[in-house]
Amino acid sequence: MGGTNTVFGIVDARGNVVAKSAIKTGNHTDVNLYVDDIYAELSKLIETAGGIDKIKGIGVGAPNGNYYTGNIEFAPNLPWKGVVPFAKLMSDKFGIPAALTNDANAAAVGEMTYGIARGMKNFIMITLGTGVGSGIIIDGKVVYGHDGFAGELGHVNVMRNNGRLCGCGKSGCLETYASATGVARSAREILETSTSHSLLRNIPVGNLTSKDVFDAAMEGDEVAKEIFNYTGKILGEAFADFVAFSAPEAIVLFGGLSKAGDLIMKPIKENMEKNLLPIWKGKVKVLFSELKEADAAILGASALAWEI
Amino acid sequence: MGGTNTVFGIVDARGNVVAKSAIKTGNHTDVNLYVDDIYAELSKLIETAGGIDKIKGIGVGAPNGNYYTGNIEFAPNLPWKGVVPFAKLMSDKFGIPAALTNDANAAAVGEMTYGIARGMKNFIMITLGTGVGSGIIIDGKVVYGHDGFAGELGHVNVMRNNGRLCGCGKSGCLETYASATGVARSAREILETSTSHSLLRNIPVGNLTSKDVFDAAMEGDEVAKEIFNYTGKILGEAFADFVAFSAPEAIVLFGGLSKAGDLIMKPIKENMEKNLLPIWKGKVKVLFSELKEADAAILGASALAWEI
Repeated sequence: MGGTNTVFGIVDARGNVVAKSAIKTGNHTDVNLYVDDIYAELSKLIETAGGIDKIKGIGVGAPNGNYYTGNIEFAPNLPWKGVVPFAKLMSDKFGIPAALTNDANAAAVGEMTYGIARGMKNFIMITLGTGVGSGIIIDGKVVYGHDGFAGELGHVNVMRNNGRLCGCGKSGCLETYASATGVARSAREILETSTSHSLLRNIPVGNLTSKDVFDAAMEGDEVAKEIFNYTGKILGEAFADFVAFSAPEAIVLFGGLSKAGDLIMKPIKENMEKNLLPIWKGKVKVLFSELKEADAAILGASALAWEI
Repeated sequence: MGGTNTVFGIVDARGNVVAKSAIKTGNHTDVNLYVDDIYAELSKLIETAGGIDKIKGIGVGAPNGNYYTGNIEFAPNLPWKGVVPFAKLMSDKFGIPAALTNDANAAAVGEMTYGIARGMKNFIMITLGTGVGSGIIIDGKVVYGHDGFAGELGHVNVMRNNGRLCGCGKSGCLETYASATGVARSAREILETSTSHSLLRNIPVGNLTSKDVFDAAMEGDEVAKEIFNYTGKILGEAFADFVAFSAPEAIVLFGGLSKAGDLIMKPIKENMEKNLLPIWKGKVKVLFSELKEADAAILGASALAWEI
């Protein structure tokens, strides 16, 4: 479940995604109608896979998902506010057990089981989507912390003074700079405060997306490239602090913004290295996920269901 | 082992410190002479405890200590540069096994076993001494990370622009503001850039210590109180980011600066709360260690020796 889209699928015991589909998240203001819509779509897939009796359980990856309680709690990028007992809603609707975790935790498990982090015991998954999420793996296990909410690295502060207002209510959060929406904000800021020539000026400023910035950068637009440098700098500086916390073997990037490739990877690596303690310089990998975006989330969430 | 002092002792199977002593760390430029001095002192204690045959092993807590290799590597606050095979030096000298970890990790284990963190599975130990160290406990275990160096929270960045130069070579590290030396630096800065009346002006600026600032604050000196507010603000803001990482039940403070009590605790709590995500507001404890400073380090280090 992402702030924009919800993808779901059926995974067999060998980790094959045998069927999948998607619905929009954002246009459901009532979570019960959202569950109804998932049920309508997913039931079709379940029928083609042999019926509900063949399904062991449901695993859900959701923003601010709490593994311990099965609740989604105070998710700034979802239409439902407060505490939503989502695992229970799903379990009641489908009549089979359901478990839930943070969407980024689910992606991390998917990456560890099927992706570029296979064999790694210590890594950090960073999801660069509508928001910035994270799944932290230490000694081969997801870090849940005391209350089930560990790994909210999109909300560490990267700008103490005059930081951008975040959906969570704080200011200066990493996600206000390094998400897809953060990149669009950077574009609007730089276009409004400079007079530099840019292809981005052909697009109405209110409609600018990170995709537009990517397209312009690929055409050599200097302002667009500068926006990726700025985004990568903020990410790289933050990553150096994450390394100081858990000393991971790698940081794995996942989600829409990671499609920018070297445009974002180069400034990330450069600024991370610059800010690492000597003991870590040149030793921590930054990698792009090798899983298809939709599959990583589905595979990771599915791994939860095996353990219900 | 701290940057200034080294304390050592003999611990029995029930966790009693049956004998202890200390030497200066800083005035040993040759690590072999340092080991000789420890040997001279510690041998006396060992004899009174029944001789070396009664000793199971040696546990060492040292800055930048690597649990996996037994080395001290690139410790900015110690007189020996590069990689020092300290566990091996101790083991060779005493003829019994030795294990080593980060001094703050050792303190965290001591706190979990004998102190205020008894029964906690998820907490972060912050040591406020010559430098700022940290020991991170997740699911009841010390986080070592991929290479054994996890938990260097004294070197996360708290000041991106014009941050203070740190002994590690970076700028803006937490430890340049929140250690005892950081407090003394804050005092010098504020005295040099303001004309406010302060008791601290009676002390030659080059000789100012955090103890002087504490004493002045206890006498009601506004400048001294402002220095603790500033230090606590930086710590509290950093703690909010640490919570976003591992969602601990508590952050436990240990070391010289924690003796400042409410002078430092009040601004820490206030600024941590201000910067926490809504899900954590009012839920994360900040506590002072309940162990005597020397004992916590000795007890924590000793716990290593039982597992050799």
